[in-house]
Amino acid sequence: MKKILIIGCGLLGSSLLRAIQKKKLAKKIFIYEKSKLNIKKIKKLKLPGIIVNKLKEGVINSDLIIFCTPMSEYKNLILKINNFVLPKTLITDIGSAKIESTKIIKKYLKKGIHWTQGHPIAGSEVSGPEQGKVNMFLDRWCILIKEKNTNKSHLNILNKFWKKLGSKVVVMTSEKHDKIFSITSHLPHLIAYNLVKTAQDFEKYQSYDFIKFSAGGLRDFTRIAASNEIMWRDIFFNNKTNISKAIDLFVKNLSAFKKDINLKSNKLILKKLVQTKKVRKKIIRLKQDIDKPDFGRS
Amino acid sequence: MKKILIIGCGLLGSSLLRAIQKKKLAKKIFIYEKSKLNIKKIKKLKLPGIIVNKLKEGVINSDLIIFCTPMSEYKNLILKINNFVLPKTLITDIGSAKIESTKIIKKYLKKGIHWTQGHPIAGSEVSGPEQGKVNMFLDRWCILIKEKNTNKSHLNILNKFWKKLGSKVVVMTSEKHDKIFSITSHLPHLIAYNLVKTAQDFEKYQSYDFIKFSAGGLRDFTRIAASNEIMWRDIFFNNKTNISKAIDLFVKNLSAFKKDINLKSNKLILKKLVQTKKVRKKIIRLKQDIDKPDFGRS
Repeated sequence: MKKILIIGCGLLGSSLLRAIQKKKLAKKIFIYEKSKLNIKKIKKLKLPGIIVNKLKEGVINSDLIIFCTPMSEYKNLILKINNFVLPKTLITDIGSAKIESTKIIKKYLKKGIHWTQGHPIAGSEVSGPEQGKVNMFLDRWCILIKEKNTNKSHLNILNKFWKKLGSKVVVMTSEKHDKIFSITSHLPHLIAYNLVKTAQDFEKYQSYDFIKFSAGGLRDFTRIAASNEIMWRDIFFNNKTNISKAIDLFVKNLSAFKKDINLKSNKLILKKLVQTKKVRKKIIRLKQDIDKPDFGRS
Repeated sequence: MKKILIIGCGLLGSSLLRAIQKKKLAKKIFIYEKSKLNIKKIKKLKLPGIIVNKLKEGVINSDLIIFCTPMSEYKNLILKINNFVLPKTLITDIGSAKIESTKIIKKYLKKGIHWTQGHPIAGSEVSGPEQGKVNMFLDRWCILIKEKNTNKSHLNILNKFWKKLGSKVVVMTSEKHDKIFSITSHLPHLIAYNLVKTAQDFEKYQSYDFIKFSAGGLRDFTRIAASNEIMWRDIFFNNKTNISKAIDLFVKNLSAFKKDINLKSNKLILKKLVQTKKVRKKIIRLKQDIDKPDFGRS
């Protein structure tokens, strides 16, 4: 890759910027960022890369375009770049849900142009280019999406690209991706948001000042529930079918849990509380554990 | 306090042992522990304190008795100590739910003997005396329970005792305690267990090996869901009324969340995702935040 355009330079876009420069993966990096505040921050931080005012300037001069915006912006950006994007250009993204994006890309992207989707499993509850980290993708999984019409040459290039950034690459379909991440990421985030909402409702009904006692569990859910709302709205909307199924399974299990608690069903409860430890053991066995929980954000 | 008996020397009992010795709060510390494995560990670790084989020996020689066993063992232990406990003796505990314990104590503890309940907000997902830490209670909240018939002199002594261990003491009723902790601790733990159970069920239906992708959220829930099963069974059973109400509120909110996602209700979702950030801001304002989430376990 000689020239790379990063569209959207927030937490992940700016981390890519830093990592690409460190690993010397591009001769030139262009940045297209619509937020004036973010542009100000990028300049102040003296991040590498040339800020382009017009999308066209970045697109026609780049071999690789990486979409790092919220997924809800893909459609409008596609309609714009259709006017000048060249067939040789590789397009990819870092979005967290894939089935809906596949539909958008198929429907709106100009024929003859390929977009190979990606999803690095990295992030944080904080946002903005000032929060980006050069090592954001080091030793992280990066999922690349392969469908029937995927350009295999582009897939190979992206595979090497992410490996050079230190990521472990796995290739799968968008359908499989969205099912897996509905359980390992989307439901956990939704549950965290919902738990904090429930605590807020409880606060309304009671006059207790109880948040100061949140160290016993609630506190760490509030960290996830502080994640970027636009990004998570887009994920919830884009993977709604799988997430709905996951919610149904979760609620079914929770109702059974409640019943067992109310009936003081000793054996059933103990079986549940013991069995869940197995997942943790598996995570430790897979060397996916870290010293302290950080919700995948260290 | 001259002599202290710790009944049950696991994670918290052994932490108390270490902290009491460090702060020189007792001339003698007795340990009553029924697990032979734990006794072996205590001896190997050369923890301070005299291991007593008979409960009577520890009880009649101590000014302060601290129950550090699962709450389900209180009744049997009370029935035993009733035979020899002296009225001057101060009894307390570290249990995480209080209304049911109050009933057990009221029903079974010999008349004229006082038990003043305590709950240090500290712990870990690991168990056993080898996991205890001398600073377990430093800068932590410790709740002391005050009811109509509470011995005020004992309450004062315990207040000073926990402050000397470095804790911040708050006094409240068992009713208030159980309501607060049903939201700040019990529901979050139950939700974590239930989320991991749901992931396991999902694994059964699918043939995907998805646990390795757990860094996006699930992983850190598995940590909480690896906590001691006996302790958590007891908490769930002992605070079942409040926890049931919390579950109902949680499910109601989750159903609304699901509906908003399926209808792609932009404004409603964004409102929710933004509002939950307020709780986090409050936690930071109250200086209850830490560098990394640790579920109250650092």
